[in-house]
Amino acid sequence: MPIPAPAPAVLTTPLLRFLEETRTAFAPLDAGEVASYIPELGKADADHFGIAVATTDGHVYETGDTQIPFTIQSISKAVVFALALDLLGAEKVEATIGVEPSGEAFNSIRLRADNKPFNAMVNAGAIACCGLIADAAGDEAFELIRSTLGRFAGRALEVDDAVFQSERLTGDRNRAIAYLLRTYGGVRGDVDHVLDVYFRQCSLLVTARDLAVMGASFANHGVNPVTGETVVSNYAVARTLAVMSSSGMYDFAGEWIYRVGVPAKSGVGGGILAALPSQLGLGIFSPRLDVHGNSVRGIRTCEAISEAFDLHMLSRQDDVRTSIVADYDFRTVPAKPGRQPHAREILKARSAAIRVLELAGKLSFATMDYVTRRLTDPAGVPEFLILNLHRVSTITDAGLRLLTGLLRSQLPPTTTAVIAGVESTSPVAPQLKALKDQGVRVRIFPTYDAAVEWAEDQIVYRHGGFSQVGVEADLTRQALLEGLSTEDLSALSRLGTRVAFDAGTRIISASEPPEKVYFLLRGMVSARAATGTRLATLIPGMAFGELALIDEPRSADIFAETEAVCLEVGMEQFRAFAESHPRAADRIIRNLAVLLAARIRMATARIEMLTG
Amino acid sequence: MPIPAPAPAVLTTPLLRFLEETRTAFAPLDAGEVASYIPELGKADADHFGIAVATTDGHVYETGDTQIPFTIQSISKAVVFALALDLLGAEKVEATIGVEPSGEAFNSIRLRADNKPFNAMVNAGAIACCGLIADAAGDEAFELIRSTLGRFAGRALEVDDAVFQSERLTGDRNRAIAYLLRTYGGVRGDVDHVLDVYFRQCSLLVTARDLAVMGASFANHGVNPVTGETVVSNYAVARTLAVMSSSGMYDFAGEWIYRVGVPAKSGVGGGILAALPSQLGLGIFSPRLDVHGNSVRGIRTCEAISEAFDLHMLSRQDDVRTSIVADYDFRTVPAKPGRQPHAREILKARSAAIRVLELAGKLSFATMDYVTRRLTDPAGVPEFLILNLHRVSTITDAGLRLLTGLLRSQLPPTTTAVIAGVESTSPVAPQLKALKDQGVRVRIFPTYDAAVEWAEDQIVYRHGGFSQVGVEADLTRQALLEGLSTEDLSALSRLGTRVAFDAGTRIISASEPPEKVYFLLRGMVSARAATGTRLATLIPGMAFGELALIDEPRSADIFAETEAVCLEVGMEQFRAFAESHPRAADRIIRNLAVLLAARIRMATARIEMLTG
Repeated sequence: MPIPAPAPAVLTTPLLRFLEETRTAFAPLDAGEVASYIPELGKADADHFGIAVATTDGHVYETGDTQIPFTIQSISKAVVFALALDLLGAEKVEATIGVEPSGEAFNSIRLRADNKPFNAMVNAGAIACCGLIADAAGDEAFELIRSTLGRFAGRALEVDDAVFQSERLTGDRNRAIAYLLRTYGGVRGDVDHVLDVYFRQCSLLVTARDLAVMGASFANHGVNPVTGETVVSNYAVARTLAVMSSSGMYDFAGEWIYRVGVPAKSGVGGGILAALPSQLGLGIFSPRLDVHGNSVRGIRTCEAISEAFDLHMLSRQDDVRTSIVADYDFRTVPAKPGRQPHAREILKARSAAIRVLELAGKLSFATMDYVTRRLTDPAGVPEFLILNLHRVSTITDAGLRLLTGLLRSQLPPTTTAVIAGVESTSPVAPQLKALKDQGVRVRIFPTYDAAVEWAEDQIVYRHGGFSQVGVEADLTRQALLEGLSTEDLSALSRLGTRVAFDAGTRIISASEPPEKVYFLLRGMVSARAATGTRLATLIPGMAFGELALIDEPRSADIFAETEAVCLEVGMEQFRAFAESHPRAADRIIRNLAVLLAARIRMATARIEMLTG
Repeated sequence: MPIPAPAPAVLTTPLLRFLEETRTAFAPLDAGEVASYIPELGKADADHFGIAVATTDGHVYETGDTQIPFTIQSISKAVVFALALDLLGAEKVEATIGVEPSGEAFNSIRLRADNKPFNAMVNAGAIACCGLIADAAGDEAFELIRSTLGRFAGRALEVDDAVFQSERLTGDRNRAIAYLLRTYGGVRGDVDHVLDVYFRQCSLLVTARDLAVMGASFANHGVNPVTGETVVSNYAVARTLAVMSSSGMYDFAGEWIYRVGVPAKSGVGGGILAALPSQLGLGIFSPRLDVHGNSVRGIRTCEAISEAFDLHMLSRQDDVRTSIVADYDFRTVPAKPGRQPHAREILKARSAAIRVLELAGKLSFATMDYVTRRLTDPAGVPEFLILNLHRVSTITDAGLRLLTGLLRSQLPPTTTAVIAGVESTSPVAPQLKALKDQGVRVRIFPTYDAAVEWAEDQIVYRHGGFSQVGVEADLTRQALLEGLSTEDLSALSRLGTRVAFDAGTRIISASEPPEKVYFLLRGMVSARAATGTRLATLIPGMAFGELALIDEPRSADIFAETEAVCLEVGMEQFRAFAESHPRAADRIIRNLAVLLAARIRMATARIEMLTG
């Protein structure tokens, strides 16, 4: 019976569905007026309504009129402030423009007691910002602003010339502000040039989709998630969003942080840009404005999205305790397979010498602090501390700082710190590399296995357990040959070939046909999975390639870790041996079954540990 | 050689070390003046300086004078506002008190144009808040406030009577504010009673440690992390922190959100309480105040901690892509062991019918939206979709909403959704139970294994693969007996005993000695690990307890899933059989080794999948 074909329904995600429903719900709202202080703006179609959401991985959801261009107006202030912070340095910008809410309308001419503009979101501050950029970039100032806004949006933006001319003709209030600023040194140079830049900046054409992508560039710590381009520094992002939070929605800012809690900036063209770090960028276009100058349907949409998805920036649900998923030593967890009895004894006697913390999720200030507190009892800090970061998705700067502190100063000098589960492709690999580059003493392994293996090797080595690696073991030491007579062993030895491998050689490839079995006589070899995971370390007395005896495929690659000497027995030779020594051959198969059973028990224990 | 004893150093965590260093660095600062507008406050020791941090899991770090009591003053406003929101409902509170920054000093008598106080962090708003509580609770109003603040702090708080008397004697400005409010209905009832409550509230004695724990109660969504008590609703937390963000630091609020970005409230007693959701509560005591009325060393400490650990609430580093750690079907991953060849064929032909998404970390708005977008291609949505949540630490409300939308409306009706890795102790178990209770069609399994097993069973069943379960299989179908002659099989059959088990019976316990092997003739049994993880499903033609043949311990429990009929062969009988049929017995051991090798390959593949 064939598998039924999937239903032909077009799949939409829950979020897109929600945005469509929200648009449908608020489209009938016709409160508010299209801005008319500039004649050109009054020509906008009041019914237009578009909602776009851009995610931090670069997907853009759109519903409604998200491709209709309109002028960006005051929304440009946020981006230009960020540009100024990066271009001129925070100190210079902050010396010229404040960061306090004004409590007044956006076009107020009032300055602070020290004659600075209240903040960069009111006209006075934005004009001062243009002045700073004009100072630095001269004739290139507007092109710089235009290209920066374009990089935020991910496409080149054009000026609406009619709106620009209209802004310039009716811009006396802004002219007054600019001249007032120049009185106090808040604008230097040519006021006409500064205002020309400012009016053009406000007249740039964007769409709701553009605003969403610009918002996502803020939300994605300054990297445009659609183009992958870094458009602004993380410092400028956090500071700009802070000013947007306290002053972005004109004199509605307190209500905004109270009800919506997402940094946003609106423009009288009917646009709203909102950005929540690590979550989303939001762009809305609907030209009817309320008394504060904010888009009526835009505000309602922001409120609805914030409430439905609990996006308020102060609403966070986390539990630091989920950052440690396991904390154990080897007193309860069985040791890994593949050790000689002698080494096993050494490890068993020191089963508390390795402690493993399995961490998960994001290592942030709070979660990493929690981890450090797990290690404050000196009695609980062992010879080897393995932090398994395999399930760690992110380390924040603060998390890294605390991790560095843990490794540098908190652990006693008798403890060797080991980090496991960080492959080269891991998202945290670059941070850990930087850690090592700073001289922090820590061993980093791509897999948990490799880390445990290494720590165990160290313990075995410290306690004399590898003395036999360099000594040739005769066949009486082979577990696979247990119970065979001296005569049996001599016969087998005569049939086989003595071979030596240099350190690093791949002796067996998992993909080759199973034609030979090897008895390790001297040196050390390792069995590795296709992913490179080390499955076992083998030392003299152990065999490999032994599945050939039952004509089963290879299960792993085998590499020589040191120079290694083996007795190689081909399957033809083994069949000859079985012909002449049938009881011995049967005993070997039985021994093989016993060894395999032990390996299964170990593997089952590993799986239980990983899935339990 | 014994393990060297750990160094006797007292371990301190990096965060505690940082707090100590910060205290040492700022202790020499002697700018600012101790508040003197109330004579009693002027008596404070200007040199006191304590820093406490309380974490969301209830640990409190302390350095310096964290146990010195001082009066809480304006910091009480934040807690009392939260209390009012819960006690009276948001609508009533928000109708009486605004949420906009005032741009004025804390003790300003100016009200908004609509005669409401600007917000609850200035005296006018706080007195209005007291008025609301006095209205509702009458004579119990102060006790209610005292006990609420005590529950935030985790201990009973007392009034400093001298300060209270001093506040009352010198409180004319507040008296004026209260009477002005009554003019407009912002305070009703007895002004003296309301002010008595307000002055007492401001005179409650707290320590820096108390403030940290109160902050942590806010940071921990309204649950005091030290006592475990729920002290306020999550709604009230987010709203109170929003008002603290925009207005908590007097007329320094814009700078505060710009530079520090952590909601905070200061008091003229020299205290600062700061709270960052999911991160920490911070309490500082240092009585010298700046011109805004904020503790000088307190501000510097907050700035230093925020900067060092990147605690700005708008600075977040996340990558939604890390939420999906694996996405596969069984075309590339080997099938689980323990299936009959017939069932294996069915599963192999339909290896794309099960798709697994392994999710990790926090399922939030952004990460869960990313997950839903992985499933928008109808061709990629299979018969069975398994979401493995084993590594998921948290599901936020928004994440749950999107997950619900995915399961309810996004997936086609031909897809069966399965959630794996949610044991009863999982932090997300209650949310998923609620999901099911709402009638969302989804199967939930404690382990990944159980989920895959169930989905595979469904596929095998749909395609006729279990028809043989109810039919008795003779011994010729046993993989373990492959290659034996009819005579061999008859002899073995005669030696064994035919036994039947009811569904649900445990046939083998992993802990019992290995004394019997069972050949399954009819019905279905399962092998389970000690954790309950299902390791394999066995159907007629398969054997279990077979490690007894090589005298190896049991590796798993075996349960009858249906009524099951077996041939039971004791080890004594098997030895008798081996005596009389040595070649057959050797062949059985060889077959065993082959079956074990196959199981090892499967287990290795599982481990690679889990660790790769």
